[in-house]
Amino acid sequence: MEYQHILNTIASELSSIQSTGKVASYIPELAKIEYEKFGMHLYCINSGHYNLGDSEERFSIQSISKVFALTRAMSLLDDELFKRVDVEPSGDPFNSLIQLEYENGIPRNPFINAGALVISDILISQLKDPKKDFLDFIHNITGNSNIGINSKVFESEKKYSYRNASLLNLMKSFGNIKNDIEIVLDFYIYQCAIEMSCKELSIAFMMYANGGKRISDDEQILSPRKVKRINAIMQTCGFYDEAGEFSFRVGLPGKSGVGGGIAAVHPGQYAVTVWSPPLNPKGNSELGMYALERLTTLTGLSIF
Amino acid sequence: MEYQHILNTIASELSSIQSTGKVASYIPELAKIEYEKFGMHLYCINSGHYNLGDSEERFSIQSISKVFALTRAMSLLDDELFKRVDVEPSGDPFNSLIQLEYENGIPRNPFINAGALVISDILISQLKDPKKDFLDFIHNITGNSNIGINSKVFESEKKYSYRNASLLNLMKSFGNIKNDIEIVLDFYIYQCAIEMSCKELSIAFMMYANGGKRISDDEQILSPRKVKRINAIMQTCGFYDEAGEFSFRVGLPGKSGVGGGIAAVHPGQYAVTVWSPPLNPKGNSELGMYALERLTTLTGLSIF
Amino acid sequence: MEYQHILNTIASELSSIQSTGKVASYIPELAKIEYEKFGMHLYCINSGHYNLGDSEERFSIQSISKVFALTRAMSLLDDELFKRVDVEPSGDPFNSLIQLEYENGIPRNPFINAGALVISDILISQLKDPKKDFLDFIHNITGNSNIGINSKVFESEKKYSYRNASLLNLMKSFGNIKNDIEIVLDFYIYQCAIEMSCKELSIAFMMYANGGKRISDDEQILSPRKVKRINAIMQTCGFYDEAGEFSFRVGLPGKSGVGGGIAAVHPGQYAVTVWSPPLNPKGNSELGMYALERLTTLTGLSIF
Amino acid sequence: MEYQHILNTIASELSSIQSTGKVASYIPELAKIEYEKFGMHLYCINSGHYNLGDSEERFSIQSISKVFALTRAMSLLDDELFKRVDVEPSGDPFNSLIQLEYENGIPRNPFINAGALVISDILISQLKDPKKDFLDFIHNITGNSNIGINSKVFESEKKYSYRNASLLNLMKSFGNIKNDIEIVLDFYIYQCAIEMSCKELSIAFMMYANGGKRISDDEQILSPRKVKRINAIMQTCGFYDEAGEFSFRVGLPGKSGVGGGIAAVHPGQYAVTVWSPPLNPKGNSELGMYALERLTTLTGLSIF
Repeated sequence: MEYQHILNTIASELSSIQSTGKVASYIPELAKIEYEKFGMHLYCINSGHYNLGDSEERFSIQSISKVFALTRAMSLLDDELFKRVDVEPSGDPFNSLIQLEYENGIPRNPFINAGALVISDILISQLKDPKKDFLDFIHNITGNSNIGINSKVFESEKKYSYRNASLLNLMKSFGNIKNDIEIVLDFYIYQCAIEMSCKELSIAFMMYANGGKRISDDEQILSPRKVKRINAIMQTCGFYDEAGEFSFRVGLPGKSGVGGGIAAVHPGQYAVTVWSPPLNPKGNSELGMYALERLTTLTGLSIF
Repeated sequence: MEYQHILNTIASELSSIQSTGKVASYIPELAKIEYEKFGMHLYCINSGHYNLGDSEERFSIQSISKVFALTRAMSLLDDELFKRVDVEPSGDPFNSLIQLEYENGIPRNPFINAGALVISDILISQLKDPKKDFLDFIHNITGNSNIGINSKVFESEKKYSYRNASLLNLMKSFGNIKNDIEIVLDFYIYQCAIEMSCKELSIAFMMYANGGKRISDDEQILSPRKVKRINAIMQTCGFYDEAGEFSFRVGLPGKSGVGGGIAAVHPGQYAVTVWSPPLNPKGNSELGMYALERLTTLTGLSIF
Repeated sequence: MEYQHILNTIASELSSIQSTGKVASYIPELAKIEYEKFGMHLYCINSGHYNLGDSEERFSIQSISKVFALTRAMSLLDDELFKRVDVEPSGDPFNSLIQLEYENGIPRNPFINAGALVISDILISQLKDPKKDFLDFIHNITGNSNIGINSKVFESEKKYSYRNASLLNLMKSFGNIKNDIEIVLDFYIYQCAIEMSCKELSIAFMMYANGGKRISDDEQILSPRKVKRINAIMQTCGFYDEAGEFSFRVGLPGKSGVGGGIAAVHPGQYAVTVWSPPLNPKGNSELGMYALERLTTLTGLSIF
Repeated sequence: MEYQHILNTIASELSSIQSTGKVASYIPELAKIEYEKFGMHLYCINSGHYNLGDSEERFSIQSISKVFALTRAMSLLDDELFKRVDVEPSGDPFNSLIQLEYENGIPRNPFINAGALVISDILISQLKDPKKDFLDFIHNITGNSNIGINSKVFESEKKYSYRNASLLNLMKSFGNIKNDIEIVLDFYIYQCAIEMSCKELSIAFMMYANGGKRISDDEQILSPRKVKRINAIMQTCGFYDEAGEFSFRVGLPGKSGVGGGIAAVHPGQYAVTVWSPPLNPKGNSELGMYALERLTTLTGLSIF
């Protein structure tokens, strides 16, 4: 089946599915997103771009930004990074405070909040102007310099960050946060507030499908060895405590965000992004997971 | 680099590495295994067999048998199987009793002991003579009908099965074990006591690399959809609480056993088995993990 | 206020209270108990016996037997006993399997099931005929040799003992159970199936109010030092995860059972027993707690 | 034996005991305390004051202040207070973050840090000038208006309060902290930095032995019902995860602090305070516990 035809098939299937998910509402700005939005963008190494629906409308990338932050940190540091954050799935529905205590302030992986906060702390220590550097990095890998943050989401999220402040204080008590808590929290929330479209995310994620090279000009952004590691972490840790289910149904390394986005890659083949705001009870886009499961089934291409 | 050359390179690297691991000693029969044994067998879809060292000597496959048991159960039942056992990584160093309690007797996945005990219980309910059926299945996928169990290991393990009996009783109190505890325990320990060589395991695992088909005669043993699911579970749950580390370093779906074996597959490419008895602190073969990491690095072929 | 008058006041208050509790139903034999039964017996050192309602009807003492088992074990062994069971409140709503794992098979205290199973194991190791010895001990402290077990409750409970078998297997895997699991379980369930009336329990518990002496003939059953320890453990651990609430509202050392009984003592003053089958959500007799709270309030006599 | 003679006996026993405990060192100011200090003050309702050693030297009362804070809160509010903090022992060696998560931000009791922080939050909401009110209350119950804080300890503790800030943020995320985190933390640390002598603490604690009345002039500070509740909470929760051990060995309601102090009461009989800085591994004064165990043994007077 040809790719655009597959996307159209998925679109037609989706039209008859009633989502039972709920749009994230823990901050008012996210709750405003229109329930019915749906976008999908597939970017194949060999055959280019395919899209569906609202694929060029920007949305809050939220936790998908954790992949970019990890990438940036791995480009600055080598494996010593993993002394401060582990690479194991958390597997814990009771969230990370518990494991943080047992494991002396070392988060399970860079894609749970605690781990991403440590990555933020590392970037702050390494960079002069972390916010500017982070946006520059995204501009660089997408070739699009007008990507930025939604300042209302940024401000809104700052008001509801007690749990993240709790994680930071706990890790600081174990010595695993080096900078001021307010500064780390501010930078972390900044990253989450970035807005990108499905198309822009697929272009950004193409480097993980393409051995670390920016496809537009073949520039090596990250070494193949490090890309392999990031993909492995996405595979085992990219979907909170639904990593197994996603692996089982979809079979691609990827990362979701509470904004309703999921970006995933098939190494050597393609990058793909879907966006649909209603989330399932585990916090992942309900229709997004459906669409990706159908994609790997209809193409017959998953990593497994 | 040609495959045999890669294996030889790994062999030469290993000769200068001093393992710090420890042979499993919780039952006397396992503790007797010679520390220095090392075997490796690579079976490529396109180019056939490559091997190293003690690759044709049989050893106790232990938990690698959990993959065969899951396969057999999935060939008998469809997704209703996953109402009785989940597919998420356990992520818990404190072992499964804790999660079993929180999650009302539903084990996290089929590759932790609790989950494999549920699979055993299912097979007992479904099959007339589960032990014979299980051996027959292995004979069938390997084409080798003299594979059997080590009865000393079987008897020895029965004497030290209090923790597994504890898991079974707890799950029975939640109604998730249907048969007599003694019978389930007996069948479970039987599976673990099977002995196979690296070569035999690679032949058996080839079906997971080959879309569910037995390569010798192209017979479809399991549907591609179910094979994809099993590979996904191996990827996220195959290495106890080191699944992330294995994924990160090696990047292949696989399963380890405390006998020192690891079997893994690269879908569409190859099946590979290594055997080296000394285990790292997380219970996985230390040199086995090293050898597989070098294999995917030197071939440049991992799923990521 | 005179004691009988206080009991009558409590009775009159209770007549206008509608219990919202539920009779224990995990075994059919217990579920048959009549909901409306209520008995209370107060035995004062100085002024003798006072009673209310069904105070001479026997009921299943269940976990109240744990106090007698601990007493018997302490009369045979000194503080080395507390190497195998701790004396701290468990404080854990998720029950004891979790703590048992963290704490390597050492139960938190002798009044949770795991701890009582260890005490049973100790008594089996120490005594020739533990069941006979145990009944003899109760006959001895009550002066009543026709107290025995309810064999229907005993048989019924044996069929639903998977969770206790799970605890025993786990502790055995840590080496903290010395005898056969079946034998320990059988003896433990035997103790729980003993039937006594409020009056008989108050007479038995009088030794804890009376410095370890049987009041009928002043014989020293247990040293004052050991009685102090047992009372302390009743105070902090006698009511599952409601020990604090009981201490807070009632302020007496005591022990409850799922049969609806509560026995308590005011050292130097009295022993008291209440019986009312409906249990609150934490597993303690709802009206029993109310009656005891009123008793210490109306007499102005609690240990605090 | 006469009381002063008992104290002298204890002193003579202590002279031959080598403490293996360690002075609290998490803040530099506490680490400076002289290891050898020892004071004890016994205040009997009937016979007055008895003392030993450094009984009139002031030390940092630390967590003993939690009893005064609870008392003040209970004098302002009735049982609705216990909707925001429970009265059960925590029983958890892994500290309170875990339970706080499970139990939705409701601390187990007012004597663990999380609970005391909620009490601080309540006092801030209720009082115009909480610091002044708190000192005034202590001046009032001791009759000594020059008791104050050690400002070096106060400043020092503020620098190492990440774990308490973590608890506050977590509880705030559950809505159980109403005021600004910085303000609650500041007031909490202020209370801990108060300095009192053994004699002053015994005088202050006399109200818990004396039915809520200040002994000097018989003024009712707190109702007998509330005093009973506070004593009960001290009994079950006053010694972190050593409450059972203290109850078992000493048998008195009391409260310890990391400054090395322990204050305890025998209702109707006496208040007693000991001070010895070296702490046992559970954080309670090692020689203090010894001295109190000997006191209740030699007097034969414990609540059990």
